[in-house]
This record gives sequence, structure tokens and C-alpha cells, in this order.
Amino acid sequence: MNKVGIIMGSKSDLPVMKQAIEILEGFDIEVEVDIVSAHRTPEKLFDYGKHAHTRGFAVIIAGAGGAAHLPGMIASLSPLPVIGVPIKSSNSIDGWDSVLSILQMPGGVPVATVALNGAKNAGILAAQIIGTSDKCVLDKVIVYKQGLEQMVHESAKDLK
Amino acid sequence: MNKVGIIMGSKSDLPVMKQAIEILEGFDIEVEVDIVSAHRTPEKLFDYGKHAHTRGFAVIIAGAGGAAHLPGMIASLSPLPVIGVPIKSSNSIDGWDSVLSILQMPGGVPVATVALNGAKNAGILAAQIIGTSDKCVLDKVIVYKQGLEQMVHESAKDLK
Amino acid sequence: MNKVGIIMGSKSDLPVMKQAIEILEGFDIEVEVDIVSAHRTPEKLFDYGKHAHTRGFAVIIAGAGGAAHLPGMIASLSPLPVIGVPIKSSNSIDGWDSVLSILQMPGGVPVATVALNGAKNAGILAAQIIGTSDKCVLDKVIVYKQGLEQMVHESAKDLK
Amino acid sequence: MNKVGIIMGSKSDLPVMKQAIEILEGFDIEVEVDIVSAHRTPEKLFDYGKHAHTRGFAVIIAGAGGAAHLPGMIASLSPLPVIGVPIKSSNSIDGWDSVLSILQMPGGVPVATVALNGAKNAGILAAQIIGTSDKCVLDKVIVYKQGLEQMVHESAKDLK
Amino acid sequence: MNKVGIIMGSKSDLPVMKQAIEILEGFDIEVEVDIVSAHRTPEKLFDYGKHAHTRGFAVIIAGAGGAAHLPGMIASLSPLPVIGVPIKSSNSIDGWDSVLSILQMPGGVPVATVALNGAKNAGILAAQIIGTSDKCVLDKVIVYKQGLEQMVHESAKDLK
Amino acid sequence: MNKVGIIMGSKSDLPVMKQAIEILEGFDIEVEVDIVSAHRTPEKLFDYGKHAHTRGFAVIIAGAGGAAHLPGMIASLSPLPVIGVPIKSSNSIDGWDSVLSILQMPGGVPVATVALNGAKNAGILAAQIIGTSDKCVLDKVIVYKQGLEQMVHESAKDLK
Amino acid sequence: MNKVGIIMGSKSDLPVMKQAIEILEGFDIEVEVDIVSAHRTPEKLFDYGKHAHTRGFAVIIAGAGGAAHLPGMIASLSPLPVIGVPIKSSNSIDGWDSVLSILQMPGGVPVATVALNGAKNAGILAAQIIGTSDKCVLDKVIVYKQGLEQMVHESAKDLK
Amino acid sequence: MNKVGIIMGSKSDLPVMKQAIEILEGFDIEVEVDIVSAHRTPEKLFDYGKHAHTRGFAVIIAGAGGAAHLPGMIASLSPLPVIGVPIKSSNSIDGWDSVLSILQMPGGVPVATVALNGAKNAGILAAQIIGTSDKCVLDKVIVYKQGLEQMVHESAKDLK
Repeated sequence: MNKVGIIMGSKSDLPVMKQAIEILEGFDIEVEVDIVSAHRTPEKLFDYGKHAHTRGFAVIIAGAGGAAHLPGMIASLSPLPVIGVPIKSSNSIDGWDSVLSILQMPGGVPVATVALNGAKNAGILAAQIIGTSDKCVLDKVIVYKQGLEQMVHESAKDLK
Repeated sequence: MNKVGIIMGSKSDLPVMKQAIEILEGFDIEVEVDIVSAHRTPEKLFDYGKHAHTRGFAVIIAGAGGAAHLPGMIASLSPLPVIGVPIKSSNSIDGWDSVLSILQMPGGVPVATVALNGAKNAGILAAQIIGTSDKCVLDKVIVYKQGLEQMVHESAKDLK
Repeated sequence: MNKVGIIMGSKSDLPVMKQAIEILEGFDIEVEVDIVSAHRTPEKLFDYGKHAHTRGFAVIIAGAGGAAHLPGMIASLSPLPVIGVPIKSSNSIDGWDSVLSILQMPGGVPVATVALNGAKNAGILAAQIIGTSDKCVLDKVIVYKQGLEQMVHESAKDLK
Repeated sequence: MNKVGIIMGSKSDLPVMKQAIEILEGFDIEVEVDIVSAHRTPEKLFDYGKHAHTRGFAVIIAGAGGAAHLPGMIASLSPLPVIGVPIKSSNSIDGWDSVLSILQMPGGVPVATVALNGAKNAGILAAQIIGTSDKCVLDKVIVYKQGLEQMVHESAKDLK
Repeated sequence: MNKVGIIMGSKSDLPVMKQAIEILEGFDIEVEVDIVSAHRTPEKLFDYGKHAHTRGFAVIIAGAGGAAHLPGMIASLSPLPVIGVPIKSSNSIDGWDSVLSILQMPGGVPVATVALNGAKNAGILAAQIIGTSDKCVLDKVIVYKQGLEQMVHESAKDLK
Repeated sequence: MNKVGIIMGSKSDLPVMKQAIEILEGFDIEVEVDIVSAHRTPEKLFDYGKHAHTRGFAVIIAGAGGAAHLPGMIASLSPLPVIGVPIKSSNSIDGWDSVLSILQMPGGVPVATVALNGAKNAGILAAQIIGTSDKCVLDKVIVYKQGLEQMVHESAKDLK
Repeated sequence: MNKVGIIMGSKSDLPVMKQAIEILEGFDIEVEVDIVSAHRTPEKLFDYGKHAHTRGFAVIIAGAGGAAHLPGMIASLSPLPVIGVPIKSSNSIDGWDSVLSILQMPGGVPVATVALNGAKNAGILAAQIIGTSDKCVLDKVIVYKQGLEQMVHESAKDLK
Repeated sequence: MNKVGIIMGSKSDLPVMKQAIEILEGFDIEVEVDIVSAHRTPEKLFDYGKHAHTRGFAVIIAGAGGAAHLPGMIASLSPLPVIGVPIKSSNSIDGWDSVLSILQMPGGVPVATVALNGAKNAGILAAQIIGTSDKCVLDKVIVYKQGLEQMVHESAKDLK
């Protein structure tokens, strides 16, 4: 089973994180969305991380801002690939705290970090990961990339 | 009881963290030292954080580097004051990651952050916290500060 | 006695600092609020710092922005634990100056630094410090943290 | 087929990148190592990126320093998941250029970025990705994480 | 022939890049404007870069934001001088990513980088480059600089 | 009287600060050197700042590192011009903390900040300030600058 | 004679720089305001810098933004003390470029740098410099500082 | 005539700048090397900048560190294309000051900035500029780039 778990530290992260949801729904990949706060619901975090790989998830996407510990703690608890989305939340110093506290994981516990507020790319990366074993999803990724190319060609035409 | 728990993410943090141990021993405050890795021993982290306030600790000092989640996760799990020591470890980007991932905690879950590699100050701060209810420790802090002043006066004399 | 002194460098810091006041009032902890400018009222600073520990304060919370010397100078003058709140004031370079001039105190003189504009967390940390000797306050901190957890669970339910 | 392609911009990146090779060899995952420079061998880059998914690769790990375009350009050309390793090379400004030019990819073209010099984590992440469809690799990841935990417990014992 | 090619990664870069167009049109230098995305149209990038020097271009101006690979990849593919314009796009971290991923090119493959959003200067620089072999354009640059001087003298007069 | 007071937060700042001493002695300007720590000798700081303008000083040069409060606190206490030297001490984050906590003073209380470790320039600036009312010192500054020019001309000759 | 020259790189710097004018007029110090652009009017720059000390100026205040060369170039040309005001202009990267290109002068050629947009402090510093030889101005500085203190005391009263 | 002027602020910049000399000599392009300090020899700077375009130079390469004003001031004075090399000198803050004070030129006065210490690329860029009107030099640039490609292919072979 190839479900993607999308979690975020706070409901206020939803406007960013819904870009991941939309991308994955566009690829017909099942998503399950939840709010899990490393700092306010540590027991839920623990439970989520320990059992994700037995609940049908292939990949976890975790978004958080400021001192963003959610992606790294899920990566600590789960053997699944974890994609981290640094969010430029209101309590962030220009996003640097979010980026560094997700990216700079110690040896042994990776988080696949995407750009600041890059939830869309987190969705695409999750699809690419699923595409490593699901030819149908890989083909959709190829088509998606052709679509990006097409859009640039069209805007280049508009320019002229 | 007023024991101070000193934990660090890795044995390689000991050269920095022992400055906290020495300061607290100088104040005759009991310390208990352990290695707890947020990313490699999440169960120990969880257990440590949940029970620290019932095990006689008054304050926890937690040191970590890089994407440093240990202090924040202990603060998430424990009602005790948690002092965070950002460590400029080998995998750190000039210490910025350590500082920001400890300092920038979200509303509701503070970490009392000290300077980069500032374990000595973490020890003094723990003593000051204990001193809020222990007149004897408060007096030692006052004497300690007089000692600092004296040393500057002496080095000023040497200069002349 | 366990009063918390809350001081700030300028009246313009009040919108941030009142979050500390509200949190502590919610915990039924007495606060005394004042404006003390390290740079414009050095005599008041000196007087405040020298006598705070004899005036019934357990903890001092000091907020300031830019080249923020107030928390560090109070820490220089007082044996009490001092919590520093870096404020992103109008004359600050994205908050970096406020953060670094409060956090990076030399060995011997700690300031317990919280996140940029993190006055709420300063209030909670002050409560936690008082809670190290006041079981009733510790219990309120525990209940407060349960409330945070509950709110996340509810917003997670809303999401679904 | 689940081969991992490991490429780097220059031979001088090998001391960092061999950590990825060793981790993957430890997981019995086949790797193919090559030097591909975005800036000096653009034709090879193009050829590599266009055909990687038809040559049996499941994942590409790309390491580069300075204005590090290799990971992003491979991600542009290939539908496979691309893991980027920012390298603190001699021509880098403290690693910031490497990190930002790999991490901050535009919407549509993700690079799964790991920590500065984090080639070891790139290897583990590649294994986790393969583990999403290969139960045997997933089990090895679980065992690997247990090993990390064990090592911390042992160094904690040593400390006491 | 001394045509200037102006390319940008996305139509949203046009408000910045049109300053280069206007400057060059003011110097009566022919420009050809196009959208070429390193990450979404790699084949067009490749084709553009390989053939620019045979299509009558003397200089290429390339603008891009975030992980900005367009200028560097054109410089990789073309023997012409390439001027890079870092753009502070919406997905940029205060422009630092754009600046560093254009500026910090490895030895062998220069990009002539101008200031953040400095498309106007990119246009002037292109004119100066053409002016190295076209006396008429050099004279226009001299006149342009006299105009700048004159404007300052006039605003100085207004002040008084 | 035109004496220059040179103070520093710690004896370890002397190797940097002696460049200011040497420059001023070269200009035959009287200097008085002392160690005054804002954080460890606040009473001495206070005394020094309050009385400097009645003790024959024309200018104060203050050097400090990390959360460097010495220059700003002297500026708070004294009506004299205060020159601040940010020092890249061992507890500094690449010097940024020293620079920002000296430079970013609030409106009303300036510190004339020089470059990181720029004690030599602090000495020259003090001479220039004294030179505003002492024609003999002004002439020495003019001669000093001619000497700098001469040295460059000579090293240019050596090059050829 | 103790005139202060206030110059700025562009008319758009006037809203910031007029704070220096107002402060100095409040101290009854004569000012002469001009626009001098290092990059657009190099001849005027040269002329201004070479002759300032013979035209009755005691101090020069120079404000500029971005790659801000005006203060440093005046300091290169004149033996007078030069105060630099880094301006956060529209073409600046959060003010860092302005600050660093004014502050980090090489040994031999100091610029007395004040805070970002700190023109008010530049005015006060100029008055303090003049006050080193003009008792009347020194007394005004002392009164000004008392006024600052008074204002804080009043806003502290308002708070209560 | 197509001579390249290479200037630097100090003899200590020569180890970096000689990479530009060597590259240009390898392309058989005439170079003239000199030391010109914006801050210590402003008259020479002025003279150099005003007359460079009448002395047979096609391009100027200027290297400087710290508050690096040399490239920008030459660009202010000359209609020729100016290439700036930010140098990480001993008085630089990790090179950021050098980079920003060269790169962030105001509208109207471009400096073609290359990477930190990127003198080699400055030489290649100068050759590319000359190559816009000198087919023979363009061909040498094409051959040079083929050489780079060849070296990567060889080191890739060595790897296997």
C-alpha cells in the first residue's frame, strides 16, 4: 500500500501544506492529513512515528516552522522516508530557523528537505518515491514534467 | 529535592557540557549526567522527559548541535524549566543551526537558551533557578559573582 | 515571595511584553511591570538590578530590541535568573541584533533567552522556575501543557 | 531494479560522497558512481539525467558545492527522486551557497536535500526510498536504527 | 553582429528583466527576449546555450530567482559572456539563494553577476561589453554616465 | 586636555586593542588603558562612564566581543564620543554578535563603530576627533595618510 | 569653525538623513547639506573630500545604501572624522550590504559607523565630537541625555 | 587594442589575483598589473579610472576585500566593463563584506562580480568579453571549455 501521511505542527500551516495534498490527489495517490505537534502533542507524535510504517504509509510529509522538530522527530521514530517542509511561520526569523532545524539532521537520521514553503515539491517528491515501484505513478510524473515544459513554451509564445 | 539533570545528544558533546557539571559541583548541587539522543534514542528521550519532574530534578540542562531537537523535545515532555545549550558540533553550519533550532521554540513551550557552547552559563543559570528557593545557593551565586568581579580587578592591576 | 519583575526598554515594547504579563496573571503569579532603559536610564537600571533580589522578585523578565543590553546588564547586576526577550523592533536588522546581543553573554553571566518576540514563553518559563519550589504553580504548568495538547487534538478533529 | 546512481561534480567531492557509497554497500544495494559536472560536462549531465530512469536506477544521489547546480539539473531532467548533498567545498562561503542552491528549487522540480556534507544520510534516505517497495531493505533500515540506539546506550553506560 | 539575448526563468521575472530591455533599447542595441527555464525546459536551455554564439548574440543576460541555475547553465554551455541577474522572487529567502546560486560559480565557468534585481545594470554592462569593440556604443555609455552625473547635480540644486 | 581612554572587557582583548594604543602613542596622544567588564564589574563600568568627561578624557575607545555591551553602556553613561571595537573573541559567532551588539544602538545613544577587530582604526578615529580642535594632531593625520599612500606606491613599484 | 557637512548618495536618502539635520539644528550647530554620489558624481566626491577640512567642516556625516562607498571614499580623501550612516534603501539586501560596506573599512581609514538608518545618532555623535572642544555643546549633549532619561521616567509613570 | 588592466587594493591580494593573470596569459591576452587602493591612493584611483579607456584597456579586473570599494569606484569613473573579484582577506567577515560591497552596486553603475576569490573566473570572463569581437580569442575560450570537459571525463575514468 502506498498511502502518504501529511502532518503539520499547527492548523495555521494548512495554507502551505494543502499544496502537497492537491498535488498528490492530482496523482491519484491516497493521502491522510493530520495535525501532530512535536511540542504540544508529544505522545501523538510518538505514536504516529512508531506505527506509520505498519499503517500502510509509504512516505511521511511533515511541515513545521520556527524551531521545527516535527520532521526530524518523525524521522527518528520511523524507518520510512520523511519529507520535511520548512514553513515561514509568523514566529520564524525569515525562515532560517525552519530551514536549518529541519535540514541539519545528524548522521543516521535523514530528513528529505524541500524549499521554504515548498509543500508542492514535497508532494511531487512523495509521488516520485512511490514511482520507484509503481510504473503508473512514474508515468504520471513524466507527464507532469511535460506539462511544466509545455506551460513555459506557452508563456514564451505569449511574450513574443 | 534540587537535582539538576544534564543530558547531551552525543558523547562528543561532553567536552562542552562538562563545564556545566563543574560549575554545579562547585555550587554543591547534585547533578546526574546522561546521554539522550532525540534522534537515535527517542524512547529514552520520551521516558526521560515524562518522568524527570517525579525523579527529583528541579532543572534539566540539555546540550545538542546541528538540528538540535533534544532541549525542545524535553521541554515538550516535561513541566520543568529546560536550559538549552547550542553546541557548535562538527556537522553544524557555524553554530547557526544549533542556536536557531533550540532558541526559536513556539509559543507554549519555552527553552531557556544560553550562548553557543555556553554550558558554563547553563550551570550558573540552573544554580540561579535553584537559588530562587534555596537561600544558601543564592548566596553562593552572589559570592561567585563577586569572584568574577575580583578577577577583573586583578587583571586590570596586572595591566598597569 | 515569588514576584516576577517584567521590564522593557521602551513603551513600544509593550505589545510584545504584555503576553508575558497575561500568561503570569493566568498562573496567579504577581507581576510588577516597569520601563527601564539600559541606554537612556542607566541609573534606574543600576538601581533596579542591584536591589531586585531584595525586593521580593524571584525572576526578572527583560525585553529589548536592536543592540539589546537590558537583559544582560540586569544579569550582570543581579543574582536572580534573568529571562531575555529579543524584540524585533523597528530599528532592528530582522531581529538578528536583538537575538545575538541577548543570547551571546560571556561565561559567568547567563541570560535565559527565549525566541524572538517570545514574551509568552518568557512568562511560562518564569512560572516553571517558580514551579521548582511551588508545587501549586508546577501543577498549573502541567495543566497548561495539557490544555495545549487538547487544543491541537481539537484542531486535528476540525481538519477531518 | 533498484540501483542507486551516485554522482558528484568533482573528484574532490569523493571524500564526502564515499559515505553514501559505504552506507549503501552496507545495505547490499547496488551503486554506480560517476563524476558529472553540471558546469564542465553539460552534455554528460544531459545524457545522464535523460536516461537514468531507463538504466535501472531507482534513486540518484548528487553532491556538489558552491553554486551547486548538479542536483537541481538532474531533477530537471529525470522523473526519479533526486537526493542532493550540499558540499562545503573550498570555493564555498561557509556552505551557505551549496545549501541554498540545492534546497531552494522552484515549484515542480524537487530535490530531496540533506544536511551540509550529509552524504551518509543521503545513502540512508536512498535505502529508505528503496525500502518503500523492498521489505528486505526496510527491515535493514529498522535494524540499522536499532544499532544507532544501541550505540547511544553503550556510550551512556561508558559515561557512568 | 551584436545582439543581446535576454532570457528569464519565468514570465513572473519580466517586471524586473524589462529594465534590461529598456536600457538596451535606449542604446539602440538589438535584444531578443525569451523564457527559458533551466528546471522546466532543460532541452530548450541546452539548445539555447549550445547555439547562442552562432546566432549573432554577443552577450546573454539571464535572470532567475531561488535556486537560480539558468545563468550558470547557460555559462556552462556557451563561450559567450553571461550576465546573471539574481531575482528576489516569491520563493526566495530574502534573495540570498538567488545571489549565491548565481555568483558562486566554480573555477572555469564565470557568470558576471549584478546586484539583486539589478536588471538595469545588466543592460548597461551588456552595452559596455559591446562598447569594447563598438566605439559608437562606448560613446553612448559615456553620455549615459554624464546624464547620471547631471541628474545628481540637479537634485543637489533642488535640495538647496 | 585630550586624553583617550581605552578600555576592554577582558585581558584577552589586549592583543587586538593594543593596535589602538600603538597608533595613538605614534600620534603622541596620551592614553589610559584599563579593563572594565560590563558584565563582571558593573560598578566599575558605572563609575568609569559617569566620570570620564570630568577626568580629562576627550574620547573613549571600548572593545568587547560576543554580546558586547561595554561600548553601548559607556555611551549610555557618558556625554563623550565613544568608539566601539567589535572583537571576534572565542565565544563569538564569527563576529556577528560583537558587531551587531555594538553597532545597532537605539536613537539617542550613538557608538562610533569600527570594523571587526579594527582597533587600529579606532585609534586613528580618536586622533581625527582630537584633530578637530588640535591643528597639530590634524596635521599628523594628514601626514599619516600620506604615508599610507606612499606605501602603496612602493608596493606597486615592487610588483613591476 | 565647527560646521558639519551632511551628504547623501541620493535624494531618496533624505527622509532618513534629515534626522541628522534636525538633531544638529537642535544643538545650534551649523550644517551644510548636499547630495554627493560616489558612483554617479565621482568628481564632486573627489572635490568634496579633498577640500572639506579647509572649508570649515569639523565632521562629515555621509549616508548611503546598498554597496555604500560614499562614507569610505570621503574617509579616504579627508583627514576629518567621517560618520557613516548605512541606509536600508530599496536596492539593499535587508541592509546588510549597506552596513558591511560602510563598517568594514581597512586598517588606516576609519569610518565611524552608526546603526542602520541611524542618522539621528550620527547627528548626536557629530555634536559629541564638536563637544570635545566646545564646552557649550558638551553641556547641550548632557542636557539632551537628561531629556532622554526624563522621557523614559514619564512613560514608566504612564504605564502604572 | 585589447589589453586587460588587473588591479588590486593591496599586495596581499596578489596570491588570489595572479590566477587572473595566468589565465589571461594562457589566452595570449596582454595584461597590465598594478596596485591601486581606493582608500589609501584615491588620486591614483581617480587617475586610473578616468583614463583607462584611453590607454588601450578593454576590460578592468579589480580585486579587493572587506569594505571593497575599488571595483565600484573604477566602474564609477570608467565607461569600460569592470569585473570585481571579492577577496576573503584577513579583515573580512567570512567574505560577506567583500561580496556585498562589490555586488550591490546602484542602478547605473554595474560591476560584473565573480565568486569569492574567483580571480580565475575574472580572467576567463575578460577573455570572453574580448572574444565578443576577437574570433581568435572566442575560439580559445571554446577550446578551454573543451579542456575542462576532458579533465572531468578523465577523472571519471580514474574513479572507475
